[in-house]
Amino acid sequence: MPAAFTTTRCVEFADTDMAGIIHFTTFFRMMESAEHEFLRSLGTSVVEKHPEDGSGAIGWPRREAQCEFHSPAVFEDELELGITVERMGRSSLTLGYEFRRGHTLIANGRMKTVCCRVTPGAGLTAVEIPEPLRGRLGELVERE
Amino acid sequence: MPAAFTTTRCVEFADTDMAGIIHFTTFFRMMESAEHEFLRSLGTSVVEKHPEDGSGAIGWPRREAQCEFHSPAVFEDELELGITVERMGRSSLTLGYEFRRGHTLIANGRMKTVCCRVTPGAGLTAVEIPEPLRGRLGELVERE
Amino acid sequence: MPAAFTTTRCVEFADTDMAGIIHFTTFFRMMESAEHEFLRSLGTSVVEKHPEDGSGAIGWPRREAQCEFHSPAVFEDELELGITVERMGRSSLTLGYEFRRGHTLIANGRMKTVCCRVTPGAGLTAVEIPEPLRGRLGELVERE
Amino acid sequence: MPAAFTTTRCVEFADTDMAGIIHFTTFFRMMESAEHEFLRSLGTSVVEKHPEDGSGAIGWPRREAQCEFHSPAVFEDELELGITVERMGRSSLTLGYEFRRGHTLIANGRMKTVCCRVTPGAGLTAVEIPEPLRGRLGELVERE
Repeated sequence: MPAAFTTTRCVEFADTDMAGIIHFTTFFRMMESAEHEFLRSLGTSVVEKHPEDGSGAIGWPRREAQCEFHSPAVFEDELELGITVERMGRSSLTLGYEFRRGHTLIANGRMKTVCCRVTPGAGLTAVEIPEPLRGRLGELVERE
Repeated sequence: MPAAFTTTRCVEFADTDMAGIIHFTTFFRMMESAEHEFLRSLGTSVVEKHPEDGSGAIGWPRREAQCEFHSPAVFEDELELGITVERMGRSSLTLGYEFRRGHTLIANGRMKTVCCRVTPGAGLTAVEIPEPLRGRLGELVERE
Repeated sequence: MPAAFTTTRCVEFADTDMAGIIHFTTFFRMMESAEHEFLRSLGTSVVEKHPEDGSGAIGWPRREAQCEFHSPAVFEDELELGITVERMGRSSLTLGYEFRRGHTLIANGRMKTVCCRVTPGAGLTAVEIPEPLRGRLGELVERE
Repeated sequence: MPAAFTTTRCVEFADTDMAGIIHFTTFFRMMESAEHEFLRSLGTSVVEKHPEDGSGAIGWPRREAQCEFHSPAVFEDELELGITVERMGRSSLTLGYEFRRGHTLIANGRMKTVCCRVTPGAGLTAVEIPEPLRGRLGELVERE
């Protein structure tokens, strides 16, 4: 299935390690920043500070993150990063990520996040993913 | 099963994010640094520069990393980190990680690495995990 | 002058870059985490959440950071890190840092921070460094 | 004096800390990645792997880094980053950096790097900044 969203990320010097390749944690940083770029492209933000109904800020803490590393990437590589919407529950959202350099698969992973209301002093409460984001994501969910 | 190795990690200010909690990539950094501490405790290093047979350096590139986040950790938390040896193949090693703060499970994950010979100019070749490390790890593999 | 506080930091794999040495930003991370360890040793925390007079949280945003890099450090190096109290103003605190591996000077730097009251929604206001920390630091200021 | 090179950087979630603002080390990461982008714009790379005369790789280790933090930046801020060539010696290069968000000065700093030949097994030797880069930088040096 084609990606719901694609972007690119450049491997920076600070992203490399003494093995001469990208450090594996960089993929998780890139996945997160691409997720946020994807949410912005849908008209929202991972940190929705002023919801229209004044009910408190919305955040998306991570529940699980996973990545497989297939081929090394090096400094100044331009990686193509595709996002698919693997699953949407009431509160939870699982996005899939695929990193490619040209035709070479570099890494692929997924992250499960939970839509939460952030109440100062009272922590996080899982809430239903709000409209219109819910509808937009629903159209993008992968069909088997 | 009890952990094969335990250590502690402190949550630093730079490890936190604007949500006020530890950033999820910190767990992966901690898993990697604890893995290296574990290997040192077994008399080797993740970067074995001078193998006794002079056959080139040994490295342990990651093949897969995964983590589930159960409860947030905050600045200055002292986390207990337990490592179990989940599986050892000819070249591959899968370690499990469990982060606790007192009785609270904070996160648990696993990383699969592959023992490789690093030949300058020729890249990485998977090799059998060398003795005596192989024997030491074998004694620590979890039995169902 | 002898350091007011000394600690050690180990160079982790994730701290290195493709040049095979510690990435320069690591020194700034280590300086910050050592500063916090130093403040804890004086009975306070860089994030004082519950001041005794209930007047709001205290924080220490950075005003300036500087570091000179003299000799490279590599993976698994154990660095000795000494802190000196270079200057204390009404609100500001300038600490000096020196990294050594044995007799070798690796890097030295300084950071100027400002003691601020953090009022939710109203941002940061510089305040006088509170007692008893002020007195403790005063005893440690370097005399020419 | 106008900048010799300008670019933009977005503040990512992972760049923030529990104070709700950009972590100060992020500025140093951005300075380094902008320096590399600047060098690429001049037709070279910070890691020149195959110099035309076959004399070994060229690298640019940092000698000093400094930054002053004037105003906080937050998640999703788009920062304008201007680079000036403050000084060029035989081997050394000092670049100045200014971060702005619209008309607001966020931070400004400088980094001094040294052009080095990297000889495997023999470490780093400072060398004259090679042409044609030397000429290009010379045209951009700030005149008082």
